[in-house]
Amino acid sequence: MMFADRMLSLCQSKNSRLVVGLDPHWDLIPASFKAGFTDGQVANLISGYLNNVIDVTHDHAVAYKPQIAFFEQFGLSGLTALLDVLDHLHHLQCPVIMDAKRNDIGSTAAAYARTFFGDDLLPPAFPSDALTVNGYLGSDGIKPFLKQPERGIFVLVKTSNPSSGELQDQALAAGNTVAEGMADLLEQWNGDQLGEFGYGNVGAVVGATYPEHMRTLRQRMPHSLFLVPGYGAQGGSAEAVRAAFDGNGLGALINSSRGILFPPSFETSGFEAVREAAVEAKTDINRILA
Amino acid sequence: MMFADRMLSLCQSKNSRLVVGLDPHWDLIPASFKAGFTDGQVANLISGYLNNVIDVTHDHAVAYKPQIAFFEQFGLSGLTALLDVLDHLHHLQCPVIMDAKRNDIGSTAAAYARTFFGDDLLPPAFPSDALTVNGYLGSDGIKPFLKQPERGIFVLVKTSNPSSGELQDQALAAGNTVAEGMADLLEQWNGDQLGEFGYGNVGAVVGATYPEHMRTLRQRMPHSLFLVPGYGAQGGSAEAVRAAFDGNGLGALINSSRGILFPPSFETSGFEAVREAAVEAKTDINRILA
Repeated sequence: MMFADRMLSLCQSKNSRLVVGLDPHWDLIPASFKAGFTDGQVANLISGYLNNVIDVTHDHAVAYKPQIAFFEQFGLSGLTALLDVLDHLHHLQCPVIMDAKRNDIGSTAAAYARTFFGDDLLPPAFPSDALTVNGYLGSDGIKPFLKQPERGIFVLVKTSNPSSGELQDQALAAGNTVAEGMADLLEQWNGDQLGEFGYGNVGAVVGATYPEHMRTLRQRMPHSLFLVPGYGAQGGSAEAVRAAFDGNGLGALINSSRGILFPPSFETSGFEAVREAAVEAKTDINRILA
Repeated sequence: MMFADRMLSLCQSKNSRLVVGLDPHWDLIPASFKAGFTDGQVANLISGYLNNVIDVTHDHAVAYKPQIAFFEQFGLSGLTALLDVLDHLHHLQCPVIMDAKRNDIGSTAAAYARTFFGDDLLPPAFPSDALTVNGYLGSDGIKPFLKQPERGIFVLVKTSNPSSGELQDQALAAGNTVAEGMADLLEQWNGDQLGEFGYGNVGAVVGATYPEHMRTLRQRMPHSLFLVPGYGAQGGSAEAVRAAFDGNGLGALINSSRGILFPPSFETSGFEAVREAAVEAKTDINRILA
């Protein structure tokens, strides 16, 4: 099944638009959980924590988004933890959106596509259903990721961070912004390769922290699934989240990472607090949509 | 010593502006070399090949640029090979410019900085002296990499690939292009943090395949070291290479990857052919500069 169709079917069948971001910030992993491990068990500790998170949330989330930086920083043991987590997710048939923001010229982009999606030369090293990609290099850096219909990408269009406007909000001579220029490229990259819901496999990352951009970008990219970071811990607005969806309440995946992974009540309720945070986020997003 | 100063001192002491790109394209590794390894020895094969390349070229190159995608695609064994290569480079005191084009919001950029440069929380997982970075997210994604004066970054400004103009050449309302807008950000990021040669630690990636942009970008970023891909195998011009340098014949590092790693005469001359390719590239660049 085409990646976009798979995601949208899951949004319907699970009645959820929630993606859980797996960002194992070392400092935020609860001390009570860390206490069960020795110094040499970084990989076991990280994958243990995240696999527990996945177990209690997968009824409520349509996908998981590992942020690879938080694994890479621990080198091979961190990446071993990532492999454990990916294995667990595949076992539970949960889609993986790898947040790696890769970008390069064609032959190197092909090597990244091989890394996350596999090809006829190699199986995927870090098996993923979708990948975040930076589109600054144009179509050469995009096309190698679009060879398998069941895999998708999310291209950075308008990011959620405070300084995203330094380049992305600059005005182009044509009257639109750089982010809107990127949005127009995404529409071209999807072309007529659209699935049953009318969406293609080239999705867009659009932050919830800039509600004034969300509506315009949704209009400009009617065929891109939106992956929306910035909801929750980063303070994204309900208004922006609402504008990310189409008239059927579909077309956007709302990510929450820290707000679900590290709820304040963990020390008293353990992973039950994580489950509650996921249910609350899912419900909150559905309420905005209603 | 500040990263920019270290690089420019090496350019003078070695009379070379050559960076050797370490892109272990599997298909291009000579069959005669592969014959000495079994199927389970991917890591040994890759690091063995590259360490031989380093041994015969390090008198002629000022730095090495591993392209991490070509290691990541083999998963943990590929990254084990990368660690072996990094270890060899550090032993020979050769600077490492990790070509990973990382980019993310502030807290994640900090995790990437930790991965490649280390910090007070962790030693570097993949120790590097510099990193290529994509600046689409603005200063939040740049500042975390600038905490250690002895480490530098190279931000993508004008890339060497055929489709780089799709976004980078779009005209801004102010009259310049998106790439030039990025160039102006680099000047701000360097600010007054300049070393003895007048260059800062925020360098720029500018491809040799677009000579018409090189001169303008050099004028616009007088304080950025240029890392110039596209020379050699990608067909970059002498004109573009010349315009990358300042009046003292400094300020640019010219990368060659495939042209040095995989010379046609390898099957007859072995690694001696690699040495000759490096000497030839170094001499060719010096001739352009003369």
